[in-house]
Amino acid sequence: MNDSFPHDLPDDAPGEIGLVRWRDYVCAEPFLFECGRELPGFTLRYETYGRLNAARDNAILICHALSGDHHCAGVHSIRDSKPGWWNNLIGPGKAVDTNQYFVICSNCLGGCQGSTGPSSINPLTGKRYGTDFPSITIRDMVRAQERLLVRELGVQSLYAVVGGSMGGMQVLQWMTDYPDFVRRVLALATTGRQSAQAIAFNEVGRSAIMQDPGWQNGAYASGQGPHVGLSVARMMAHITYLSDRGLEEKFGRSRRVVEGDEKFGAEFEVESYLHYQGQSFINRFDANTYLYFTKALDRFDMYGEGRRMEDSFAGVKSRVLVTGFTSDWLYPPEQNRAIAHALLRCGKQASYAQLDMTLGHDSFLVHAPELYRLISGFLAN
Amino acid sequence: MNDSFPHDLPDDAPGEIGLVRWRDYVCAEPFLFECGRELPGFTLRYETYGRLNAARDNAILICHALSGDHHCAGVHSIRDSKPGWWNNLIGPGKAVDTNQYFVICSNCLGGCQGSTGPSSINPLTGKRYGTDFPSITIRDMVRAQERLLVRELGVQSLYAVVGGSMGGMQVLQWMTDYPDFVRRVLALATTGRQSAQAIAFNEVGRSAIMQDPGWQNGAYASGQGPHVGLSVARMMAHITYLSDRGLEEKFGRSRRVVEGDEKFGAEFEVESYLHYQGQSFINRFDANTYLYFTKALDRFDMYGEGRRMEDSFAGVKSRVLVTGFTSDWLYPPEQNRAIAHALLRCGKQASYAQLDMTLGHDSFLVHAPELYRLISGFLAN
Repeated sequence: MNDSFPHDLPDDAPGEIGLVRWRDYVCAEPFLFECGRELPGFTLRYETYGRLNAARDNAILICHALSGDHHCAGVHSIRDSKPGWWNNLIGPGKAVDTNQYFVICSNCLGGCQGSTGPSSINPLTGKRYGTDFPSITIRDMVRAQERLLVRELGVQSLYAVVGGSMGGMQVLQWMTDYPDFVRRVLALATTGRQSAQAIAFNEVGRSAIMQDPGWQNGAYASGQGPHVGLSVARMMAHITYLSDRGLEEKFGRSRRVVEGDEKFGAEFEVESYLHYQGQSFINRFDANTYLYFTKALDRFDMYGEGRRMEDSFAGVKSRVLVTGFTSDWLYPPEQNRAIAHALLRCGKQASYAQLDMTLGHDSFLVHAPELYRLISGFLAN
Repeated sequence: MNDSFPHDLPDDAPGEIGLVRWRDYVCAEPFLFECGRELPGFTLRYETYGRLNAARDNAILICHALSGDHHCAGVHSIRDSKPGWWNNLIGPGKAVDTNQYFVICSNCLGGCQGSTGPSSINPLTGKRYGTDFPSITIRDMVRAQERLLVRELGVQSLYAVVGGSMGGMQVLQWMTDYPDFVRRVLALATTGRQSAQAIAFNEVGRSAIMQDPGWQNGAYASGQGPHVGLSVARMMAHITYLSDRGLEEKFGRSRRVVEGDEKFGAEFEVESYLHYQGQSFINRFDANTYLYFTKALDRFDMYGEGRRMEDSFAGVKSRVLVTGFTSDWLYPPEQNRAIAHALLRCGKQASYAQLDMTLGHDSFLVHAPELYRLISGFLAN
């Protein structure tokens, strides 16, 4: 998720949701992870916007990306300078219209923004789970979300499930694991399986974290941890979320006054920008969650043993729109299109859209009227 | 430089150079760096293949890339399993034919393979220079090479200067700084100026190195140093030398037996491959040289203050061939083509060639008969 490109809303922007608050769903029933491990229960932190209608058929689930969270729209206080991460898309009169839909977003299981994850206290030991937390998969994230919907919110079916990047993987998992639950599926800037290059970048990030002495095999204290490794991992990953052209247009070779070491200090604006991204990340994200989530990404594979996505998609009943972005080189257009094509080969209702935006993978998060029209049209249809 | 893709020579391969040895050029005259600092002298380690003819007009200078060295062809002992880094290109009957040309390659000034650099002993202090070594530029590297040619080897003009990546930058610098010295210029997989994205990747690598406690502000002992940071930097950089498609074809999602931590261990072949690249790099490369060289790359800018390469190219007299590779996303084809176009706009003899190879930036280093024919044709013409 790109924190810095401003969401330049036009003057005639639709209304804002305004103040929102999160809640916690505490599930006291055991949860069996795909790896075979079990937890006695879990918590998901979530937010909702709009109202569930009497027919209970207007719920839209939003799934967040690697570094996202449950707070996707509105503000938590009137002094908040920064609204939720998809506030440009979600709100009254916006593409995901909260006057019409009941919108739900939860911090994924394994996360670090209030949901149960490696930084949570293990009730059996009184200590943080750390790396004793079970390995987590995209499927586990989705199964926990399903409990939230059914048991906490009384939602028995989804009007739509929407997400980009890791959120798009969850969307595909929803579509295949709960075919009768989901009517519309919108996956953006995602892939049917993590490519070798994407795995490679994640492994560099994990290496930076796990080789930082502060990692301590995951047993660092709250507020401590592998800050250097996590910031290096984030700086590198952040480059993969943007694009050569986007960086050239935004920064080019603009120089800045070098602070500190004149030989090796950050002398270009792009360097300073990356350092800011790395530093702000360590204040809001847990290094162990980063390890667990990147492994979930790397293991995600809709092609399965048969090496054809069709085998996974046979039972799909949703209407599907997959959207790729021309400048996305992390999950390039071809990988998005391949999902739609596999669905079409199975005779499913699927479309592929491709938007020419220059900001790379993060294009799905920025102000883009063409994207808004695409999404509102797909939801209205 | 990619160490692992084998140079699969066909059965009818031309002859091999065989045993070669390096020599040291010790320059006892002061050398003024572009930054204004001076050293009382310097050493360049170099190799030559073939013979300088009586007219002294058959010398070809090879310029190496970031992690390369002077040993670009032949072997150092009959037990050497690995020849020099461009052995597929250079040798008797090969594209750069040592029966015909006198081929020279030196480890760049600032390097760590025998030439004077931050890991050398400062004669004034008896200690390694470390970060007290002067900031180095591509121009400094070229000026030191010129001394080697003129004062050590009696070469007063070059038949050609050839290099890829950082070597290509040196080639462009030769062409502009010594227009009467160089008759043919062959630059491959390079750029007229480092892009924002390329700077960004380098800055992540430098951050990994400089935040490693082993760096000690560059004052680590021989054999010690920021091994973790350097290996992380190399793993990341190595991804940028390859391509999405190349990695997919070579590794895809092939799995391996996980050693150690089953949760976060390297479970895909591509991860294990990257770790090998990172580990082998720390045994052969100096972290401070990595900092100095990446800064030299980042500061390289043929566009100059006027923001037009034409301003730098006005005095060029060489015949120039610039070659880009379709899958190179570090120095993409457009950046290579822009060099040739700027030369053409100045009325110079320049051509642009583009080869469709899948291996990314490192394409210039691998077995490619089409590239050999292009180079031998350009040199013969």
